[in-house]
Amino acid sequence: MPSISKRAERVPLSPFRKLVPYADEAKKKGKKVYHLNIGQPDILTPPNAIKAFKEESIKIIAYSPAVGNASYREKLTHYYERNGIIVSPEEIIITTGASEGIQLLCFACFDPGDEVIIPEPFYANYNGFAQIADVNICPITCSIENGFALPSIEDFESLINEKTKGIFITNPSNPTGTFYPKEVLLELAVLVKEYNLFLFIDEVYREFCFDGQEFFSALNLKGLEDHVVVVDSVSKRFSACGVRVGAILTRNHSLLESITRYAKLRLSPPALGQMISEAMLENDEEYLEIVKEEYDQRRSIVYNRLSKMPGVISYKPGGAFYCFAKFPIKSSDHFCQWLLESFDHNGETVMLSPGAGFYASPGKGLDEVRIAFVLNVDKLEKAMDCLEEALKVYPERLVVKEEVFYKP
Amino acid sequence: MPSISKRAERVPLSPFRKLVPYADEAKKKGKKVYHLNIGQPDILTPPNAIKAFKEESIKIIAYSPAVGNASYREKLTHYYERNGIIVSPEEIIITTGASEGIQLLCFACFDPGDEVIIPEPFYANYNGFAQIADVNICPITCSIENGFALPSIEDFESLINEKTKGIFITNPSNPTGTFYPKEVLLELAVLVKEYNLFLFIDEVYREFCFDGQEFFSALNLKGLEDHVVVVDSVSKRFSACGVRVGAILTRNHSLLESITRYAKLRLSPPALGQMISEAMLENDEEYLEIVKEEYDQRRSIVYNRLSKMPGVISYKPGGAFYCFAKFPIKSSDHFCQWLLESFDHNGETVMLSPGAGFYASPGKGLDEVRIAFVLNVDKLEKAMDCLEEALKVYPERLVVKEEVFYKP
Repeated sequence: MPSISKRAERVPLSPFRKLVPYADEAKKKGKKVYHLNIGQPDILTPPNAIKAFKEESIKIIAYSPAVGNASYREKLTHYYERNGIIVSPEEIIITTGASEGIQLLCFACFDPGDEVIIPEPFYANYNGFAQIADVNICPITCSIENGFALPSIEDFESLINEKTKGIFITNPSNPTGTFYPKEVLLELAVLVKEYNLFLFIDEVYREFCFDGQEFFSALNLKGLEDHVVVVDSVSKRFSACGVRVGAILTRNHSLLESITRYAKLRLSPPALGQMISEAMLENDEEYLEIVKEEYDQRRSIVYNRLSKMPGVISYKPGGAFYCFAKFPIKSSDHFCQWLLESFDHNGETVMLSPGAGFYASPGKGLDEVRIAFVLNVDKLEKAMDCLEEALKVYPERLVVKEEVFYKP
Repeated sequence: MPSISKRAERVPLSPFRKLVPYADEAKKKGKKVYHLNIGQPDILTPPNAIKAFKEESIKIIAYSPAVGNASYREKLTHYYERNGIIVSPEEIIITTGASEGIQLLCFACFDPGDEVIIPEPFYANYNGFAQIADVNICPITCSIENGFALPSIEDFESLINEKTKGIFITNPSNPTGTFYPKEVLLELAVLVKEYNLFLFIDEVYREFCFDGQEFFSALNLKGLEDHVVVVDSVSKRFSACGVRVGAILTRNHSLLESITRYAKLRLSPPALGQMISEAMLENDEEYLEIVKEEYDQRRSIVYNRLSKMPGVISYKPGGAFYCFAKFPIKSSDHFCQWLLESFDHNGETVMLSPGAGFYASPGKGLDEVRIAFVLNVDKLEKAMDCLEEALKVYPERLVVKEEVFYKP
C-alpha cells in the first residue's frame, strides 16, 4: 500500500475531536447532550434573504470571477460603509469562507519558516492552516484572570525577530469573546509600522460587541494601508456557516494581486453562496440588531451562572458568542469526557471544548474550557444546570482554598 | 511596506491569462469575441434540479459535515452504481470542487519534494496545486500526431525514482480530449502495483466519451483498492461549475482518514451546492444523454473544420469537450494575441488558449492551441470561420511543405 504523507499524520485535530465518540455513545444511551462545543448557531438565516434568493432566475450556475462576483463586491462596499469602513470593490476578494481566506493569506504573505505572532488561546484551526503553509505560530499567552486582555506591547516586541512577518488577532475573539478596543489597535499599529509587519485581523464577529462598546476596524488605522489585512465571513453574522462565503480586505495592492493569483487556481468561490450573501445585505440592520440582542442575553445567562459556581473563574466577554471558564479541576479533557461518559442531570448533559487545544504553548489551558452560546436561553439555562451539578459531583474536583487549587 | 511571499511571485498563471486585456480591448472596439479558451459551458444547468432545489425548505444554512452531507454521499453511491462503480458512502469525501480535491490529495499523499508523473499537455492549474504542496511534477510528453495517446509503459517506468509517489491522469483528458480505454488503465495498473504508487485519476468528464467507447473507471481496477484515487466534480457533467462541489473517491481507508483531517480544517464544503448537486442526481440520465449528443455534434464540427484547414494538425478527440490543434505558426502566444488585437472576420474573432502553458517541459506546444467546445453549433461554426480566415492571412504563417514547417 502506498503510504500517506508524513505531514498528514501531523495535522492538528479540533480540541473536541476526541470527545465526539463519547457524545455519540451518550446519545445512543438516550442522554440529551447540549452542544456548547461548536460555533454553529441555532439562529435562523435571514428568511427574507432565502426568499429573495429563491426568486432569482438561475439558468447556468457558472464560475464566478476568481475574486468573486462584481455585484456582490460592490454591494459589500455599502455594507462596510454602513459600518464606517470605506473600501473599494477592488480591495475585496471573495473567499470560500474565512477558512480559505486565511489559507490564501498564509501563502501570499509567508514563505516557509516565517513566523506569525498570535495571542493564545486562539482558534484552533489556525494551527492547521499554518502547518499547511509551513508558517510557525509564535504564541503570546493571555490570561483568563484579566479576561484575556492582550499582553503589553513590550511582550509582543520581545517575540519579534527577522522571521516575523505579522501579528494575527481575532476581534472580537473566538475562542475567548475578548473585545479589543481602538486604543489596543492603535498600540499594535505603532509596533507593526515600526517593524514593517502585517497586521492580520479576523473581524467576523464585528457585529457582536456588547456593553455599548464601539467596534473599531483595523481598516481604519491611518498610515497602515499596506499593513492591515482583514478576514471576514458571512457565517456567524447571518448564521449562514454553510454558504462558505468569506472575504479578504486589504489596501495593499501588491498583496491583492498575489492573493488573486492563488484564488485563480481554485477558479471561483461558491456561486449560490455569493447570491444569497448578496441578498442577506438587504435590510440587514434589523436582523443583526435582534441577533445581537439574543447573544447578549445568552452571554448574561452564562456569565451569571458561571459566577455563582464555586471555584469557577470566568469573565463577561465583550464580544462574539464565546467565553472561557477555568474550573477547579486538573484536566478539562478528562472532565469533558466524564460529562459525556459518566454524568447526567435528569438524563441530560453538556458538551464543552477542552481549553488546551486552543493554546500552542504546552501545559496551558488544562483546567479551562471554551463555551459557545449557540443555544437559546432555555437550553442554555438547562446546560448550565448540568454544568453546575457536574462540578459539584465530579469525583476529580479539586478543593479551592484562598484561590489556590490543590488535590484534597 | 511588508513584502509578499517569494512563493507568491512564482504562482503559475493560466495559459490565456496574458490575453485577457487584449480580449477586453477587442470587445471595447466592438469586436465580437468567440471564447473557446475556457471550460465554462453554455449548457443549461438541469432546470428540474434548480426547481426542486428552490422548493426545499431552508431555515439555517449550517455547516455540513467536513466530508459532506450523508444524504448526498448516499445518493452519489447510486449515481456511481448506475455507472458501474460500487462504492460505499464512507469511500466518498465531498470537496469544494475538484480543485480542492486535488489540493487535499497533494497534502494527504505527498511530502515536500515528492514527485508525481503526469502526461503533458495537462490541466495547467495542476502546476499551482503542486507548487502549493511543494510536489514536483515529472511530465511525460505526449504527441498530437497520435492524438496524445499515452507513451509506453517503459517510458513511464524510466521516470520512476525513490521520490515518485504516483501517476496522475485525467480521463477523458482536459486539455486534449484524449480517451484512455480499459487496456491502457490495466497497463498502468501493473506498473503502479509493481512500484507501490498511487494512481490518481480525474474522471470529471466520465459521461462524455464518444464513438461508442465505454468508459472504464479506475475504481474498477482489481487489486488496486489501496492505490486508486479518483477526483470527481459536478461542474462539467451538469454545467454547474459555480456550485463548487466535487468529490474524492478511494478505497484506501488510511488515505480517507488523512484527507478527512485536512477537510476538517476548512469545516465544510458548500451547503447549497451540495443540496442542488443532490437534486441533479434525480433522473440525470436523459439530461446527460442530450448533453453528450450536443458535445458530440460540436466535436464533429471542430474536427471537420480543422481537418480542412491547410497545414493544421489535429485529431478527433475521444472524450470531454476539448481538442488540441497544431498550426503552421511559430508562436501560438503571438497568434492568439494577434487574433484579438489585429484580426477580425466581419467584425468577429476567436479566443483560444496557447498550448505551451499546458506543458511542463520548456519549448513544447509552442505552435499548438487548446480549443474548448463550449459554444453552440452556430457560434462554433462562426468561430471556425474566423480561425480559418485568420490562418490564411496571419502574416507570420509558416509555409508547410511535405509536413516540414519552415519560415518562407
